[in-house]
Amino acid sequence: MIKDQDFIKNPEVPGPTKEEVRCILMCKSQVSKNQVVVDIGCGTGGLTVEFAKRAKTVYAIDINPMAIKTTIENIQKHNVDRNVEIIEADGLYVLDELENIDILMIGGSSGKLDKLIRKGYGKLNNGGKILVTSILLETATEAISTFKNLSLTPDVVNVNISKGKMGKTGTMLMANNPITIISAQKPLK
Amino acid sequence: MIKDQDFIKNPEVPGPTKEEVRCILMCKSQVSKNQVVVDIGCGTGGLTVEFAKRAKTVYAIDINPMAIKTTIENIQKHNVDRNVEIIEADGLYVLDELENIDILMIGGSSGKLDKLIRKGYGKLNNGGKILVTSILLETATEAISTFKNLSLTPDVVNVNISKGKMGKTGTMLMANNPITIISAQKPLK
Amino acid sequence: MIKDQDFIKNPEVPGPTKEEVRCILMCKSQVSKNQVVVDIGCGTGGLTVEFAKRAKTVYAIDINPMAIKTTIENIQKHNVDRNVEIIEADGLYVLDELENIDILMIGGSSGKLDKLIRKGYGKLNNGGKILVTSILLETATEAISTFKNLSLTPDVVNVNISKGKMGKTGTMLMANNPITIISAQKPLK
Amino acid sequence: MIKDQDFIKNPEVPGPTKEEVRCILMCKSQVSKNQVVVDIGCGTGGLTVEFAKRAKTVYAIDINPMAIKTTIENIQKHNVDRNVEIIEADGLYVLDELENIDILMIGGSSGKLDKLIRKGYGKLNNGGKILVTSILLETATEAISTFKNLSLTPDVVNVNISKGKMGKTGTMLMANNPITIISAQKPLK
Repeated sequence: MIKDQDFIKNPEVPGPTKEEVRCILMCKSQVSKNQVVVDIGCGTGGLTVEFAKRAKTVYAIDINPMAIKTTIENIQKHNVDRNVEIIEADGLYVLDELENIDILMIGGSSGKLDKLIRKGYGKLNNGGKILVTSILLETATEAISTFKNLSLTPDVVNVNISKGKMGKTGTMLMANNPITIISAQKPLK
Repeated sequence: MIKDQDFIKNPEVPGPTKEEVRCILMCKSQVSKNQVVVDIGCGTGGLTVEFAKRAKTVYAIDINPMAIKTTIENIQKHNVDRNVEIIEADGLYVLDELENIDILMIGGSSGKLDKLIRKGYGKLNNGGKILVTSILLETATEAISTFKNLSLTPDVVNVNISKGKMGKTGTMLMANNPITIISAQKPLK
Repeated sequence: MIKDQDFIKNPEVPGPTKEEVRCILMCKSQVSKNQVVVDIGCGTGGLTVEFAKRAKTVYAIDINPMAIKTTIENIQKHNVDRNVEIIEADGLYVLDELENIDILMIGGSSGKLDKLIRKGYGKLNNGGKILVTSILLETATEAISTFKNLSLTPDVVNVNISKGKMGKTGTMLMANNPITIISAQKPLK
Repeated sequence: MIKDQDFIKNPEVPGPTKEEVRCILMCKSQVSKNQVVVDIGCGTGGLTVEFAKRAKTVYAIDINPMAIKTTIENIQKHNVDRNVEIIEADGLYVLDELENIDILMIGGSSGKLDKLIRKGYGKLNNGGKILVTSILLETATEAISTFKNLSLTPDVVNVNISKGKMGKTGTMLMANNPITIISAQKPLK
């Protein structure tokens, strides 16, 4: 897994998703070499890069031009620009153009989470996965509610991680903000 | 309980101990009106002020002159300067001069935690309490080990708190760094 | 603060609210001797007993007869039965009969949280407080949303606490389930 | 990643290491197809199975015969018994017999953590990794201290995870006990 400090950052763009959370997301997604991933709200591009190293194609989407710029820098730095397509747009409209998605990653939804999940679910291959990361209490409950309305039982993981910082007097734990990962799989048939 | 933002802060001084942690410490201490409290490593003075509102006398001790200055500012701001005695010194030497302590609060120990607990324990009235807050992994285990060597079974509480920050899009949880509270009571007789 | 193990428990009744969470709630409530408290969803009675030790009158309400029975046992055990009135009912109907409440504590809401907060707010004295504890993601966001609709900015605290369990090999941290405390104050005038 | 419930469990054997923690450990280890892994304190065999799916050979070691039995059941269930060697012994003596280890995973140390890390470090290939999981405060600080004495700066991650449990009234977060992951890499040359 790429270290947090190995991503190019932009103070106006959220991310990158922290290393340990990227680990859990890669696990939960079960991404593999022949899969198509859509990463909506790609931000800094941390998840875009990780998915690109493991999938066939990643569509990285953000409405923020600064996020698009930073994601481009990171896919170049990490040599995964060949299988990433970068799109500056509203994820909802991009989903209209796509079919046969294996993994839909939603890291940012601009208030359209319910619609993104519903539309994305329609485009998902059987066995495909939707993963949502939430730093807002409201986004977590909205994702859960939408999955339930689709008759899915989401997997909900609330992650509180602290990292040890070595100092002269000892090891201080520095907290990352909590994040909730909500994910669900489309039935295999 | 006083709000965090109502303390005067100094960038070179740690603290104040966060509101919810002060709540738990006041609870665990069971401080009351006729008691003597020693607050070693008083820092910003957050706990000094809270104890002063509930105890007879608080000795607030720090070896950092900036901490002493900030604590003085805070006891004045919160009108508890009459029952606080401020001492710029090594807590270990101050303990030599004191007797009949009811509560020993250790928020900073400059690498002398074992000695502070042992000496403080000798000065403690029966039923008195020692409370240690630790932001370092090593301090927590040293406190536990010292209490065990004194044949005490400490109460150990690891606190991870996040505070909701209201934004346009929802409620973001912002993590405080974890803190461990280790406390023990001297037997009543 | 009363230790968790000092409450009489009933396997069919949730609670008691854990010691450290009771600490934070007492702090946030700023309960004092002349105040009237309503405790809806009193469960085991942990908060009822703590409020009763600090307030003038506590109305402890639950729709579960087993909870009522357990709360009665606990207010008797802890000698606070003189200033507690126990009511087996839907909190919403009890609120209709009450006026001039200082503190409304909601620990259980049977799906009526929005209505409970709204009705309770109308009965609250100026400067009065509403506190909600939530073990469900959905309850936390509903409480926040209702407070916002009342033009209040709630204080939101997410609490993750682990307790040290002493064993032969060392100190194992045992996690309590996370709980969110959402509280707000009615303006002083 | 294998779901927690897909491992055979034994009430007398700790584990399996929870799914999300296994994710983070696989990430941190950067295990690959040609590598040799030693898993000391294999317990239920959760990590043994995960490493076996990704490495050339795994030596799974435990001094508890019940753990050995459960690990055998799990490597058979998950079809990884060809590249796992199971050894009922003290890890310290097994390390004497091995050379050229790529990854040393220590999930249980029977009070010999310092010696295990030191001996393991001597057997480690350049670029190799040692990972320690700790559920005890004391184990975490001992691991950190040992790594520091080897002139290594360990990566320390404290993980607090809660899982959502769907109920009629909403999503309850159920906490897993906190775990600390301490890891370090032997310099590449």
